[in-house]
Amino acid sequence: MNYIAAAITAGLAALAASYGNGKVISKTLEGIARQPESAGQLRSTMFIGVGLIEAVPILAIVVSFLILFL
Amino acid sequence: MNYIAAAITAGLAALAASYGNGKVISKTLEGIARQPESAGQLRSTMFIGVGLIEAVPILAIVVSFLILFL
Amino acid sequence: MNYIAAAITAGLAALAASYGNGKVISKTLEGIARQPESAGQLRSTMFIGVGLIEAVPILAIVVSFLILFL
Amino acid sequence: MNYIAAAITAGLAALAASYGNGKVISKTLEGIARQPESAGQLRSTMFIGVGLIEAVPILAIVVSFLILFL
Amino acid sequence: MNYIAAAITAGLAALAASYGNGKVISKTLEGIARQPESAGQLRSTMFIGVGLIEAVPILAIVVSFLILFL
Amino acid sequence: MNYIAAAITAGLAALAASYGNGKVISKTLEGIARQPESAGQLRSTMFIGVGLIEAVPILAIVVSFLILFL
Amino acid sequence: MNYIAAAITAGLAALAASYGNGKVISKTLEGIARQPESAGQLRSTMFIGVGLIEAVPILAIVVSFLILFL
Amino acid sequence: MNYIAAAITAGLAALAASYGNGKVISKTLEGIARQPESAGQLRSTMFIGVGLIEAVPILAIVVSFLILFL
Amino acid sequence: MNYIAAAITAGLAALAASYGNGKVISKTLEGIARQPESAGQLRSTMFIGVGLIEAVPILAIVVSFLILFL
Amino acid sequence: MNYIAAAITAGLAALAASYGNGKVISKTLEGIARQPESAGQLRSTMFIGVGLIEAVPILAIVVSFLILFL
Amino acid sequence: MNYIAAAITAGLAALAASYGNGKVISKTLEGIARQPESAGQLRSTMFIGVGLIEAVPILAIVVSFLILFL
Amino acid sequence: MNYIAAAITAGLAALAASYGNGKVISKTLEGIARQPESAGQLRSTMFIGVGLIEAVPILAIVVSFLILFL
Amino acid sequence: MNYIAAAITAGLAALAASYGNGKVISKTLEGIARQPESAGQLRSTMFIGVGLIEAVPILAIVVSFLILFL
Amino acid sequence: MNYIAAAITAGLAALAASYGNGKVISKTLEGIARQPESAGQLRSTMFIGVGLIEAVPILAIVVSFLILFL
Repeated sequence: MNYIAAAITAGLAALAASYGNGKVISKTLEGIARQPESAGQLRSTMFIGVGLIEAVPILAIVVSFLILFL
Repeated sequence: MNYIAAAITAGLAALAASYGNGKVISKTLEGIARQPESAGQLRSTMFIGVGLIEAVPILAIVVSFLILFL
Repeated sequence: MNYIAAAITAGLAALAASYGNGKVISKTLEGIARQPESAGQLRSTMFIGVGLIEAVPILAIVVSFLILFL
Repeated sequence: MNYIAAAITAGLAALAASYGNGKVISKTLEGIARQPESAGQLRSTMFIGVGLIEAVPILAIVVSFLILFL
Repeated sequence: MNYIAAAITAGLAALAASYGNGKVISKTLEGIARQPESAGQLRSTMFIGVGLIEAVPILAIVVSFLILFL
Repeated sequence: MNYIAAAITAGLAALAASYGNGKVISKTLEGIARQPESAGQLRSTMFIGVGLIEAVPILAIVVSFLILFL
Repeated sequence: MNYIAAAITAGLAALAASYGNGKVISKTLEGIARQPESAGQLRSTMFIGVGLIEAVPILAIVVSFLILFL
Repeated sequence: MNYIAAAITAGLAALAASYGNGKVISKTLEGIARQPESAGQLRSTMFIGVGLIEAVPILAIVVSFLILFL
Repeated sequence: MNYIAAAITAGLAALAASYGNGKVISKTLEGIARQPESAGQLRSTMFIGVGLIEAVPILAIVVSFLILFL
Repeated sequence: MNYIAAAITAGLAALAASYGNGKVISKTLEGIARQPESAGQLRSTMFIGVGLIEAVPILAIVVSFLILFL
Repeated sequence: MNYIAAAITAGLAALAASYGNGKVISKTLEGIARQPESAGQLRSTMFIGVGLIEAVPILAIVVSFLILFL
Repeated sequence: MNYIAAAITAGLAALAASYGNGKVISKTLEGIARQPESAGQLRSTMFIGVGLIEAVPILAIVVSFLILFL
Repeated sequence: MNYIAAAITAGLAALAASYGNGKVISKTLEGIARQPESAGQLRSTMFIGVGLIEAVPILAIVVSFLILFL
Repeated sequence: MNYIAAAITAGLAALAASYGNGKVISKTLEGIARQPESAGQLRSTMFIGVGLIEAVPILAIVVSFLILFL
C-alpha cells in the first residue's frame, strides 16, 4: 500500500513542478523574444521563481521517500 | 491507510502551490517584459503574493507530516 | 478512515486558497504593470481580497485538524 | 463515515468560496486598474458581493460542523 | 449513509451558489467599471438576480438539513 | 439509499438552476451596461427567462422531496 | 435502487433543460441589447425554442415519475 | 437494474437533445439579430434542423420505455 | 445486464447524433445569415451531411435493439 | 458481459464518426458560405473525407456485431 | 473478459482515427476555401496524411481481432 | 487480464499517434495553404516529424504484442 | 497484474511523447511557414528539442520492459 | 502491487516532463521564428529551463526504480 502512496506523491509532485516551471520558463522566453535587452532581469527573476515553485514539490518528494523508507 | 492519506495531502499541496505560484510569477515576468522600469515594484509584490499563496499549502504539508508521524 | 478525511479537507483547502489567491494576485500584478501610479490602491485591495478569500479555506484547515485530533 | 462527509462538505465549501470570491475580487482589481476614480464604488459593491457569495459556503461549513459533532 | 448524503447536497449547493453569484456579481463590477453612471440600475438588477439564483441552492440546503435531522 | 438519491437530485438541481440563471442574468447585466435605455425590456425578458429555466429544476426538487418522504 | 434511478433521471433532465434554455435565452438577451427594434421577433422565436428544448427533458421527468411510482 | 438502465437512457437523451437544440436555436437567434430580414428563411431551417436532431433522442426515449415496460 | 448495455448504446448514439447534427445545422444557419443568396446550396449540403452523420448512430440504435431483443 | 462489450464498441464508434463527420461537414459549409463558386470542389473533397473517416468506425461496428453473434 | 478488451481497443481506435482524420481533412477544406488554386497540392498531402494517421489505429484494430479470435 | 492490458496499450498508442500526427499534418496543410511556394520544405519536415512522433507509439504496439503472445 | 502495469506505463509514455513532439514539431512547421529563410535554425532546434522530450518517455518504456520481463 | 506503483510513477513522470518541455521548446521555436537574431540567447535559456524542468521527473523515475527493485 505504501508503494502506491509513494507513487502518487512522486507523480503529482512531478506534474506540479513541470506545470509551474513550464509556465514560468515559457513566459521568460516570450519576454526575451519581445525585449532582448531586458533578458538579464527576466532570467534572474526566472531563477527566483523556479526556486520558489520547486519548494513544495521537493517537500512532496521528501514525503515520498519518507513513505518508502519508513 | 495513512500512507495514502499523506500522499494525497502532499500531492495536492504541491499541485496547488505550483499552480498559484506559476500563475503569479509568470504574470510578473509578463509585466517586467512590458514595463522594465517598474520591475522592482512588481517583484516586491510578487514576493508578498508568493508568501500569501504558500501559507495554506505549507499547512497542508504540516497536516501530511502529522498524518505520517501520528 | 479519518486520516483520509483530513487529507481530502487539507488538500482541497490548499487547492482552493491557491486558485483564489493566484487569480487575485496575478490580476494585481497585471494592474500594476498597466498603471504603476495606482499601485498602492491595488495592493491594499489585494490584501483585503486575500484575507476574504482565505477565510473559508482556513476554516476547512480547522475542520481538518478537528478530524485529526478528535 | 461522518469524518469523510465532513471532509467533503468543508472541502467543497472552500473550493466554492474561493472560486466565487476570486472571480469577484479579480474583476474589482481589473476595474480599479482601468478606472481608478471609481474605486470606491467598485470596492463597496465588492464587499456586498463577497458577503452574498459567502452565505451558502458558510452554511455548508455549519453543516460540516453539525456532521462532525452530532 | 445520510451523513454522506447531507455532505453531497450541501457541497453542491455551495458550489452552485458561488458559481452563479460569482458570475453575476463580476459582470456587475465589469458594467460599473465601464459605465459608472448606470451603477444604481446595475446594482438593483444584481440584487434581484442574486435572490433568484440563491432560491434553489437554499432549497438544497433545506434538503440537506432534512436529511441530517430526519 | 434514498438519502443519497435525494442528495443527488437536489444537488444537480441547484447546479442546473445556478448555471442557467447565472448565464441569463449576467447577459442581462451586460446588455444594460451597453444600452442603459433598453433596461426595462431586458429585465422583463430576464424574468420570463428565469421562470422558464427554473421550471425543470423545481420539478427535480419536487422529485427530491418525493424520494425523501415516500 | 429505483430511488437512485429516479434521481439520476431528474438530475440530468434539470441540467439539460437549464443548459439549453440558458443558452437560448442569453442569446435572445444579447440580440435585444444589440437590436432593440427586433425584440418582438426574437422573443417569439425564443418561446418556440424553449418549448422545443423542454420537450425531451419533460419526457425524462415523466420517466422519472414512472420509475418512482411503478 | 432496468430502472438504472432506463434512467441512463432518458438522462443522456435529454442532455443530447438540449445540447443540439440549444446550439441550433441560439444560432438562429444570432442570425435574426444580425439580419432581421432573413428571419423567415432561418426559422424554417431551424424547424427542419430541430426535427432532424430530435430523431435519435426520441428513439432513445423509446428504448427507455421499452426497457421500463419489457 | 443487457438492459444496461442497451442503455449505454442508445444514450451514446443520441449524444453522438445530436453533437454532429447540432454542429452542422448551426453552421448552415450561420452561413445563411451571412449569405442569404446561397441558402439553397447550403441547405442541400446540410441534408447530405445529416444523412452521412446519422448513418453510424442509427447502426448503434440497431445494435441497441438487437441487444434488447436477442 | 459481451452485451456490454458490444455496447461500448457501438457507442464509441457512433461518437467517433459523428465527431469526425461533424467537423468535416461544418468546415465544408463554412467554406461554401465564404466562397460559393468553389462549392463543387469542396463537396467532392468532403465526400472523400467522410469515406476515409467512416472506415475505422465501420470496422468497429463490425467488431461489435462479431462480439454480439460470436 | 476478452470481449471487453476487444471493445476497448476497437472503440479507442475508432475515436483516434476519427479525431486525427477529422482534423486533417477539415484543415484541407479550410485551405481549399482560402486558396482554390492550390487544391491539388493540398489534397495530395491530405491523402499522405490520412494514410500516415490510420497506420496505428489499423494496427489497433488488428490487435482487436487478435484478442477476439485468439 | 493480459487481454485488457494489450487493449489499453494498443488503444492509448492509437490515440497518441493520431493526436500527434493530426496536429503536425494539419499544421503542414495550414502552412501550404498560406505559402504554396514552400510546400516542399514543409512536407519534408512533416515526414521527419511523423517518423519521430510514431517512434514511441510503435514501441507501445510492440509492448502490446509482447503482452498478447508472452 | 504486471501486464496491466506495463500497459499503463507504455500507454502513458506514448501519449506523453506524442503530445510533446506534436507540439514542438507543429510549432516548427508554423515557424517555417512564416519565415522560410530561418528553416535550418528551426529544424536543428527541433531535433534537439525532440531528443530532450523523448528522454523521459523512453525511460518509461524501459520501466515497462523491466516490469514485463522481471 | 509495486508493479502498478512503478507504472503510475513512470507514466506521470513522462507526462509531466513532456508537458513542461513541450511548452518551453515550442515557445523557444516561436521566439526564434519571430526574432532569428536572438536565437542564441533563447536557446541557452531553453537548455537551462529544460534542465530545471526535468529535475523533479527524473527524481520520480528514481522513485519508480526504487519501488521496482526494493
